[in-house]
Amino acid sequence: MDSLNFPEHDRVFLEPHLPLQNGNGESKSTSLPFTTLTFATSLDSSLALSPGTRTVLSGPQSKAMTHYLRSRHDAILIGVGTAVADNPGLNCRVAGVGGYGSEGLAGQPRPIIIDPSARWEFTAQSKIFELARNGRGRAPFIITAADTVPPSAQKEVLEQHGGKFIALPVGTTVDGTHRIDWTALLECLLREGLQSVMIEGGGSIINSLLEPSCQSLIDSVIVTIAPTWLGQGGVVVSPQRRVENGVVVPASRLTEVKWYPFGEDVVLCGRIKGSD
Amino acid sequence: MDSLNFPEHDRVFLEPHLPLQNGNGESKSTSLPFTTLTFATSLDSSLALSPGTRTVLSGPQSKAMTHYLRSRHDAILIGVGTAVADNPGLNCRVAGVGGYGSEGLAGQPRPIIIDPSARWEFTAQSKIFELARNGRGRAPFIITAADTVPPSAQKEVLEQHGGKFIALPVGTTVDGTHRIDWTALLECLLREGLQSVMIEGGGSIINSLLEPSCQSLIDSVIVTIAPTWLGQGGVVVSPQRRVENGVVVPASRLTEVKWYPFGEDVVLCGRIKGSD
Repeated sequence: MDSLNFPEHDRVFLEPHLPLQNGNGESKSTSLPFTTLTFATSLDSSLALSPGTRTVLSGPQSKAMTHYLRSRHDAILIGVGTAVADNPGLNCRVAGVGGYGSEGLAGQPRPIIIDPSARWEFTAQSKIFELARNGRGRAPFIITAADTVPPSAQKEVLEQHGGKFIALPVGTTVDGTHRIDWTALLECLLREGLQSVMIEGGGSIINSLLEPSCQSLIDSVIVTIAPTWLGQGGVVVSPQRRVENGVVVPASRLTEVKWYPFGEDVVLCGRIKGSD
Repeated sequence: MDSLNFPEHDRVFLEPHLPLQNGNGESKSTSLPFTTLTFATSLDSSLALSPGTRTVLSGPQSKAMTHYLRSRHDAILIGVGTAVADNPGLNCRVAGVGGYGSEGLAGQPRPIIIDPSARWEFTAQSKIFELARNGRGRAPFIITAADTVPPSAQKEVLEQHGGKFIALPVGTTVDGTHRIDWTALLECLLREGLQSVMIEGGGSIINSLLEPSCQSLIDSVIVTIAPTWLGQGGVVVSPQRRVENGVVVPASRLTEVKWYPFGEDVVLCGRIKGSD
């Protein structure tokens, strides 16, 4: 069985940065889930060498950590770009969770995929549905824009596996990109019974959540940094530049910062300053 | 006296990443000085919010560390952009070095400024010359392109303070930017008796040294990372993208990596992989 081990002694440092084991007692709001933003970058803040590609940045320890973090959240959230690029499993493979050492689906998070135009061309053979059929993960909830009509064949595959499409109001910016109403989205997830959400990427999702207007929605930030420069042209985490009174100021600062050397990588945990 | 304290217990972790106290015994080459690349970035790999501005990224501890590192090198090197933006002192203010607790200039590094076109408009009132006059630092060696004729007034100021212009062959790329021959430059510094060099920036200097052809010149890399995202539009450290057999690959990886949490920041020490 391809389960992953994440030892107890490594779990300790993460605990202050995670939702409580039962419920979302630490969330800043009772109408929102506990929300963790987590991702891995290179030293030059790249998630991947190029858009639409997957780059293995960090070591096996970090992979096990990601799966442990998944076990501690009711939902994990990605953007459609990542779904299209990676054919991801979006389950939790840490030893002991449902499908990896115990019955049922306990510890398996609900995958949430932000796909305003329903452009992800999944089939029943996509990895995420294979895992769901084998009792090793949950089918996703796919968030579309209110005016999107998903193909009925896809709706069928999704619902057969226990997933669904959820339509939400999604705005469009002048340059044609979608603008998620993160508050409405997170409130919707809480209504679905999901009391904690781990947001994993990709670049545009992370950058939009690092903007001042969204920072108050994030309870915890966990960033793994690998000692590599991917080079120019990668998928970069860097929020929009922020100007106050005509002067450029730092876009976003973490507070209550802890750095944990972890194999060759470092794990940075904190909260976004000014978000409380 | 505005000296900085850098406690003994913080010096310990840096020791394996520094030149030997006497001479350059650790350098990979006998014709080159021991070369340390060191800089501080944000999480999004920015040195500064905008070109030509100075951004204080890291805490007072990191500043003291930088000055301690300067005391451990015979020379410190920056590009002309940093000289123009910062009016830098480029001396060492750690308590106990010459001018800051002891006589003479022991522990004061020689500033090296890469200025191919001699465009830095310094005067005798520039901070670096004030410090030199007050016995608190050395006058710089300014590296120009062989075909550059520095203004005679500047030559005079420089030589009066014990500095000089050094002309070296500098190529020009198709887009008109200068291309330093780093090997020739470092060999020249060793001929000047400078057995160790700490390269501090700015962005174009650092990025050029992270390219494959230059990596073998670097003995040690020390990067301080602050838990801040500066946002898009900053001065970014990210080497040119690297393509091997038509495939994009990571530009540069560190080996023998150590991460040291240091106040709110982290200090990353390592060597560039494949450079041995």
